[in-house]
Amino acid sequence: MISASTSINVRFAETDAMGVVYHANYLPWCECARIKLLESFGANYADMYTAGIHLPVVEECLKYKSPAKFGDSVTIVAQIRQKPFARIKVEYEIKVGERIAATGYTVHVFVNNDGHPIKPPRDFMEKLLSFFDGE
Amino acid sequence: MISASTSINVRFAETDAMGVVYHANYLPWCECARIKLLESFGANYADMYTAGIHLPVVEECLKYKSPAKFGDSVTIVAQIRQKPFARIKVEYEIKVGERIAATGYTVHVFVNNDGHPIKPPRDFMEKLLSFFDGE
Amino acid sequence: MISASTSINVRFAETDAMGVVYHANYLPWCECARIKLLESFGANYADMYTAGIHLPVVEECLKYKSPAKFGDSVTIVAQIRQKPFARIKVEYEIKVGERIAATGYTVHVFVNNDGHPIKPPRDFMEKLLSFFDGE
Amino acid sequence: MISASTSINVRFAETDAMGVVYHANYLPWCECARIKLLESFGANYADMYTAGIHLPVVEECLKYKSPAKFGDSVTIVAQIRQKPFARIKVEYEIKVGERIAATGYTVHVFVNNDGHPIKPPRDFMEKLLSFFDGE
Repeated sequence: MISASTSINVRFAETDAMGVVYHANYLPWCECARIKLLESFGANYADMYTAGIHLPVVEECLKYKSPAKFGDSVTIVAQIRQKPFARIKVEYEIKVGERIAATGYTVHVFVNNDGHPIKPPRDFMEKLLSFFDGE
Repeated sequence: MISASTSINVRFAETDAMGVVYHANYLPWCECARIKLLESFGANYADMYTAGIHLPVVEECLKYKSPAKFGDSVTIVAQIRQKPFARIKVEYEIKVGERIAATGYTVHVFVNNDGHPIKPPRDFMEKLLSFFDGE
Repeated sequence: MISASTSINVRFAETDAMGVVYHANYLPWCECARIKLLESFGANYADMYTAGIHLPVVEECLKYKSPAKFGDSVTIVAQIRQKPFARIKVEYEIKVGERIAATGYTVHVFVNNDGHPIKPPRDFMEKLLSFFDGE
Repeated sequence: MISASTSINVRFAETDAMGVVYHANYLPWCECARIKLLESFGANYADMYTAGIHLPVVEECLKYKSPAKFGDSVTIVAQIRQKPFARIKVEYEIKVGERIAATGYTVHVFVNNDGHPIKPPRDFMEKLLSFFDGE
């Protein structure tokens, strides 16, 4: 299992006319936490992008428990709990203080610049799988 | 069962540096189709909003099958297939021509301006449930 | 002078916690009108993109006169009034019914895939300049 | 004169199919810097919002000098250089390292929950104007 967290101040731009954060705007927050998660085991999304290696989202799911609002600082914990293979599942918990705002996951595969599936980069998987030894 | 569809031209603003539509940007498209779906049985999101009745998303899930790109016209079909009660599940199929780009669903509950759950408005439910008679 | 207009239904996703459309969200609407404007003289943004020819925004300016809200249908008129050379200035008027919501402009230059300035494509400029003959 | 700065990591969600940050996405960054600017003289956007006092953007203008990309950390400096009265002008410089990405400004007025102009709150203006004494 591997875990990382990040804190984000809600932008007014992310709110909607119900006075809360619009549901789709939680996904870029998950992206921010996911970037930190990769950095925690020595991978870097931007370097991979430049090298023509991408990890697009092929599935995502979020459950909204309580709203985040302008003025809130949200903490997003991103975890990989299932041993990753060709597909990587990242799970998220988004909180405002102690209150859970949302939970969910994204699933990723590796593709090249043409969007075609490729084998996961060896060094990336070695670093990541070291957190799942013995499983 | 009730169904409606809408067509949307992909905005360059909705794309990302992988050259395709960013995953979160499919959700506002689902919103557009959802609005048309409500209109199809005589409900109106904007009138409900003004009346202090809201249908926030409490859960959403999308699977991305093939990318939508700038220059594409996407068709979104929104359906309510399960008989709705306090929770309403809307299912989506997003296509580029004949090609499926994404599928998924959103789940909604009724709340008031304070975000507190309320009973579904009677006239709204009468109109909607007329499509599920006999079930 | 050349002119085109497009109508857009405000998305809930485009609103903010003040109950109106967030200022930055007017710019994708200008993009939609700009795309129609190019189509009106036989150019196509998506085809140009595929051919590695881009018209990025190098300057933009908007003045907000009255708010657009969820439930509104906005009409955006895009015009090129100044004879274009290396830089193209597109001017916008965004209205809700008869009421002006915003006015402004964007300025564009031609670049290639590496972001380097290029000469405007000959056929594009011929078609566009035909609307400015005699100036 | 009053000044504040903030650093933001570019989100992949903010990029477009040209491989750079979409022009409209610089405006939420200006919002982040503006929030820090207000905090620097003891004002708080979120508290004002809760109290029914808003500072909407009535005019904005940005010039894009060089692109910001995924992987960049951008620094936004927000300044109020002109003595504020009913209208407040905030000026921005957005840099990637030493390189200027964009410059521009936003103009704000005070409104209440109904969007009607109101007099600037006394304590807000006292704190802000203390930085312009002698002008």
